[in-house]
Formats: sequence, structure tokens, C-alpha cells
Amino acid sequence: MNCITLARTLHLALNDQQPDQALLALAGMQPVDIAETLMELELPDSLQLLMLFELTRRTLVFGHLSLERQIELTSILPRGALISLVVAMPADERADLFKRFDVQQRETLLPALAQLERDDIRKLCSYPEGSAGSLMTSEYSALEADMSAASAIASLRREAADTETLYQTYVLDSQRRLVGTLSLRELILAAPDTPLAKLMVKPVLSAQVTDSSESVARAISRYDLLALPVLDENRRLVGIVTCDDAMDVVVEEATEDFHKGAMVSVPIGSLKTATIRLLYRKRVFWLVLLVFGNLFSGAGIAAFEDIIAANIALVFFLPLLVDSGGNAGAQSATLMVRALATGDVVMRDWLQLLKRECSVAILLGVTMSVAVASLGLLRGGPDIALIVSSSMLIIVLLGSLIGMSLPFLLSRMRLDPATASGPLITSIADAAGVLVYFGIASQVLEL
Amino acid sequence: MNCITLARTLHLALNDQQPDQALLALAGMQPVDIAETLMELELPDSLQLLMLFELTRRTLVFGHLSLERQIELTSILPRGALISLVVAMPADERADLFKRFDVQQRETLLPALAQLERDDIRKLCSYPEGSAGSLMTSEYSALEADMSAASAIASLRREAADTETLYQTYVLDSQRRLVGTLSLRELILAAPDTPLAKLMVKPVLSAQVTDSSESVARAISRYDLLALPVLDENRRLVGIVTCDDAMDVVVEEATEDFHKGAMVSVPIGSLKTATIRLLYRKRVFWLVLLVFGNLFSGAGIAAFEDIIAANIALVFFLPLLVDSGGNAGAQSATLMVRALATGDVVMRDWLQLLKRECSVAILLGVTMSVAVASLGLLRGGPDIALIVSSSMLIIVLLGSLIGMSLPFLLSRMRLDPATASGPLITSIADAAGVLVYFGIASQVLEL
Repeated sequence: MNCITLARTLHLALNDQQPDQALLALAGMQPVDIAETLMELELPDSLQLLMLFELTRRTLVFGHLSLERQIELTSILPRGALISLVVAMPADERADLFKRFDVQQRETLLPALAQLERDDIRKLCSYPEGSAGSLMTSEYSALEADMSAASAIASLRREAADTETLYQTYVLDSQRRLVGTLSLRELILAAPDTPLAKLMVKPVLSAQVTDSSESVARAISRYDLLALPVLDENRRLVGIVTCDDAMDVVVEEATEDFHKGAMVSVPIGSLKTATIRLLYRKRVFWLVLLVFGNLFSGAGIAAFEDIIAANIALVFFLPLLVDSGGNAGAQSATLMVRALATGDVVMRDWLQLLKRECSVAILLGVTMSVAVASLGLLRGGPDIALIVSSSMLIIVLLGSLIGMSLPFLLSRMRLDPATASGPLITSIADAAGVLVYFGIASQVLEL
Repeated sequence: MNCITLARTLHLALNDQQPDQALLALAGMQPVDIAETLMELELPDSLQLLMLFELTRRTLVFGHLSLERQIELTSILPRGALISLVVAMPADERADLFKRFDVQQRETLLPALAQLERDDIRKLCSYPEGSAGSLMTSEYSALEADMSAASAIASLRREAADTETLYQTYVLDSQRRLVGTLSLRELILAAPDTPLAKLMVKPVLSAQVTDSSESVARAISRYDLLALPVLDENRRLVGIVTCDDAMDVVVEEATEDFHKGAMVSVPIGSLKTATIRLLYRKRVFWLVLLVFGNLFSGAGIAAFEDIIAANIALVFFLPLLVDSGGNAGAQSATLMVRALATGDVVMRDWLQLLKRECSVAILLGVTMSVAVASLGLLRGGPDIALIVSSSMLIIVLLGSLIGMSLPFLLSRMRLDPATASGPLITSIADAAGVLVYFGIASQVLEL
């Protein structure tokens, strides 16, 4: 049963005052799947359903709703239910929600929370979006180095309800500085009286609160970690980023890079629920800007109007030649953008890669040059064949070199290289292609 | 110290017969970082270094080398070292390596392995590339439902060395069919004499061996799992896919989609180590094909040569108009391609999204139409202004609708929708744009 059909079933059950039927329809389903179905329902229905679940399940389902739907729900939830929900939420999700609350909601909620939770929310809310601090949770388990394995396990048992993962624990000194990590695996394999100092792993991989969430996700992926500890400027442990959150970051970053490559401003969220207004706003800026960018190509053409008018066959090859530059450029740019994003390639590799790119581009240019030479001969004679084949070689070479260098240039200027693939490189390659093509044409034809 | 500098240091240390110096330089480094450095060294140096590590570390480092380097090394490793390495490797990595061995290497190795390992390799090698079976490992921990929590922990302790993750265990019936999953967390929190039947979670999320590795990775990401069990056609447990492998799949899939979008044939592996020959081969096919695709635009132009020759000012707007169609199309296509890839959107959403796309495209088209109308007026008078602004509206609308539908069409035809963004949509939109532009121009100018 897909989630729209299911949503309809639920709506009918609630309308018929049959909440048990509704619950039955959702039995055994994963929280994220239930949340997806709830997103298809009207707000009152989804509120009513949410309140049917016991608190643990309600919290899990709530956590998978979109932030917008969470906000809508919290504004109509009864106060008591709101407080119990917020207390039960994982610290990182709670902080994300809290950031979006208005003053009145904050004032309702804060006094109802314990001092510890209030401080925790304030702290987690204080880190800027996109930083490791904004991604981390404060619910980790910490131990001391002089504990034994047995007492560590006992301590983990007591803390279990308040931690996101039991599988990685962190050994801290008296100033809460991180001195080692310990996996539950090592802990249950160890003799019960082994001190943690002997079991723990150091040096410890860690991130700073100010690091980008992207670099944290990359580290978790690279080192196959379950969680990465996050430290403040005094090397004190302030939180952990778990691998499921890192996976979400990896997916989101890839999506944003795709969108940027096609000149869609980010973030756009779920495409399915995006409004017409949002899509228009995110797309129009670059489209209009690229129109003006294309004026360079137009101006290039205008400069050669006489020669074009005298040799109208030249126009036949125009889209073919300029597009080839754009296509070759888009290939090079995309290869670089992705390699930079995954960390496969870094800034200092540029020169080495440029040399190789030259060789590849010359080979490609020659191949394509041969392919169009015959077309030129067929449609316009030897002069045109010479013009289109030599233009093709230079245009492909130029397009590739611009395409491969632009991501590095943007990176250097601290802009996102992802913007370099797609329409931007196409527009630049177009203008360059027009100049090369008609420049060569005017030289050859005037001889 | 970056890894090229470090590689140089290591080479010098080995040359000076100072292996201890080399080991010291690598002390405390993560296996994946050591592997990256080893990839920068000549083969004999990397072999020598690898043999300096004790077996556990050697196996970890070896596992992070590229498959090509692994093959090179295995062909020069002493037989004894090769056998101990292969035995120590995780089952999934071992099977991937084994698939690439030649007959002689297989014949050297197989007799040295235990029957169990031989069967395991044969089984894992039998699943096709890109399937859940090819991604999974057979090293999971399995328990029986009538065990107590305490005896389960004791059993896990014994098996620990042979399992990839202790944190998820699988409860099987007498036919090895999966009846429930159990997290180590629940296990250590439970009273020691609780039977597993009471602790385990069911229904169980699982995959079939024949499922695509992409869908398995998506499930692990969606449900925040540490591992997903993989079943054969009789619902017997045959392996698990762990979340770190799922993360790799997510990253690889995104990379391949980027490359496909720019018409680079996949897979291309690491860009840094790709050869000129490989890059040429992966790029040339589509570039040449697109040249011939662009002949449609050329033919379109040729059909209108007279009207162009008589109104040469029209050429000025050609790149601007056709590129706008391509750009709008690339935006729509990219949004759809990514939403389809992440599962945000599915096939049956097409009609609903098409309606919304129409509204967005009309708004975009009108905006851009207004932007070029003034340019048209300025350069060619009211006739040209009418032609370029009405062409722009239709071209943007057409480009967007083609761009948003093409990924669905490719998906329907069981082709990868990722190919739809970038150069392909640009070429199609170009040809459509030429026809629309000169078609309208000839209508207006002939009046």
C-alpha cells in the first residue's frame, strides 16, 4: 500500500471515530514510513494520529516529520503533550526545532524544562548552521580513565536511555578533555577488571565545533566511524556526530551540488513538497543572469555580422561547434567538481591534472575535428571544412581547460566549485566558441 | 604533512635501510591514510612497507588500497604472506579481490584455505556486481531464539573476532530463516535470564540478495540502520550489509550520477589516478554522438537560411534564446533526476509534478520574456522585440517540460534518468529552440 492510499484509509478511520483501526493500519511500520504518511494528511488528522501513539513512538515519528510540519504541530499541541515531547526528543533534533520557535513558544516551554535541558538547548542553538556544532548531539556517554571495564558497563547501563549510541564511549579527564575512545565491543570482550586506560584508543579522531558539517561527514565516511567526537577550543568534549546524521549530510550535500551545477539556488528541500513560489525564486535568478551572460555570445556574433551574411552556411555549424565546447567543458568541470567534493582531488593537484587534461582534450579535439571535417566538406567545401575542423579542435581544448580550471578558481575564491558545472560553463564556452569560430572564419575567408 | 611528502620520506627511509624510521613516520595514522600514502609509492616500496606491519594492521591497510594495487601486490606477495592476508581479510573484501584473481592465483590459494572459507568465497563471488549479494559480508553474528541474554553475550564474545559488527545480531530458526534482530544495546540492558524471543525486534527490515546495492543503501540511510540483513529466496539469512559500506555506495552512486549528467560514461574510479586513455574513452563517445545530435539544430538553421540572411540581426539572439531553453531544461531535469535518485519522487508523481512545472515554467518564461523584450526593442525594433520575447516564453516552457519529463521517460524505459541532465537536455532544447525561434520569426516577418 503506498502512502497516499494509506493516508486516505487513515483519514476515513479517524472520520468514523475508529482510532483503533487507524492504529492497526500503522502497526509494525517504521517511524520514518509513518511520518511520510502523516505528511500526506491534513494537520488536524496528523495531530490526532500522533497523540494515539505512546510517547516513545510519538517522539520517533515526530522526529521524521519535516521541520515545517513539526512547527505547525507544536503550535497546536496541548501544552502538557508539547513539554513531554520536547523532553523526550533527541537533543540535536530538539535544538533544531527550538531555533524555529517564536518567542511565545519559547517562553511557554523553557520554564517547564530542567536547568540542564535549558542549558543544553541554548548551547546547541548557539552554533551556526552548517557547522559541526549544529549537527552534533550532546547525548553521548562519557567515562573516566581509571574505571574498570565492569564498572564502565554498569555505568553505560544506567546512562543508556540518555545516549544516542552506546557503541562508542568517550574517556574524559577531570577537565572534560577527551583522552581516548572506547568501543562497546572492546569493553565486553575485556576482562572485567581491566582499567579503561588500557582499553581505550588514542590518538582520537575528532572535529572542532566550528568545522563544517561536510568535513565531519567526510571524516566519518572515510574512517568508517559510528560517531565522531566534537571538541570546543579547549579540547573539551561538547558533543558527537553520529553516522546516520553524517549519511544525511552526504546525501544533502550531493543534492545541493547537483542543484548548484544546474544553477538552482539552494537549499530547495524536498522537491515533492516545494511550492511554485519557492521553485520560481530558486530558479529565476540564475536564468536571467545567464541571459545577460549570453549577451557576450550575441555581441561576438554581431561583431562578425558581415562575414556571416556573406557566408550564411557558417550558421549551420554554429550550434554544433559552440555546444561541443560547452559539452567538453561540462565533462571536465563535472569530473573536477565531484572529485573536489569527495576529497579525491585537492587544490594542489591542479597543475598535475591540468597537464593530463591537456592531453585528453587534444585527443578529444582531434577526434571531433575529424568528425566535423567531412561534414564541412560536404556542406561548404574545403574552406569551410578547414574552418570548422580547426575551430572544433581549439573550442574543445579551450572548453575543457576552462571547465577543469573553473572549479579550482571558484574554490580558491572561497566560492562553491559546484556552480562551475552545467549552464555556467556552457555560457562561457559559448562566448569563447563564437569568437574562435568566427575569428578563424574571417581569417580563412579573407585570405 | 601531506601524503606525497610523506611518501617521499618513506621512500628515503626504505632506501637507507631504515625500516624503523618508516614505521615511526606512520605510527598513529589511520589505515585509510596509510593506504593513501602507499598508493603514492612504487610497488616494491609499498610491498616492503606493508610487510613491516603486523597482520591485523596489514590487513586493514591492504583493505583500503585500490583493487588494482591489491591485485598488483598479491601477484608479488610471498605465498605464505598472501595466504595469511587472504584468511584475515573481511569476507566481502576477500570476495571482491578473489573475483579479479587469475586462474593460477586461485589455484595457489584455494587449497590453502579451509573448506568453510572456500565455500564462502565461492558463494559471495556468485552474486552479480551491483547486487545486495555482492555488497554483503557473511561475517554476522547469529543467535537462537531460546537463548538467554547472558548466554547470547557469551556467544557473541566467542564469535567477536569473526563478525563485522557485534552491535546488530540476528535471531534465526532451525532452517536459518531470520525471525528477529537484536541490538547489543538491548542485550546488555536486559536481565541476564531474559530469553531472546522476548528481546528481539520483529518484523525485520531486510533485503533480497538480488536487490540493487543502491536500494539497500537507501534503506540503511532511510531507517538509520547499522546493518541490513540480506536473505535468499527461501528467506534464509545469507549476509549483512553494514552502514559504512552503504555510505560508500551512496557516495559512489552520487558520483556516477554526476558523471552521467555530464555525459561521461561510468564508472571512472578515482579521477586522480585515472589514465589519459581511460578518460578519453569515457568521454569521447557522448561528445561525438552529441555533435551529430546537434546536426538537428544545424539543419533547423539551414531550413531558415533565407530569412536569416535577410534579417542578420536575428543571429545576435540565437545563443541567448536557445541557451535559455537548455538552462531551464537543465534545471528541471536536474531537480527531477536527483529527486528520483534519492527516492523523494517516484514514477506515479509525474502528472502532479508536471502541472506544477507548467506553472513555474510559465512564470519563468514571462520573466525572461520581459528581460529580452527590451533588448529586442533596442537592437531590432518592435518586430524583433515581439519575436524574441514570444520565442523566449515558448522556449523556456518547452525546455522545462522536456527537462522535467525526460528523466521519467528514461526511467520508464529502464534507462538511468541521470543521463537526462546537462548536455543531452541542452542539445534537445537547442534543436527545439532553433525551430521555435526561426519559426516565429518567419511568421512575424512575412506578415
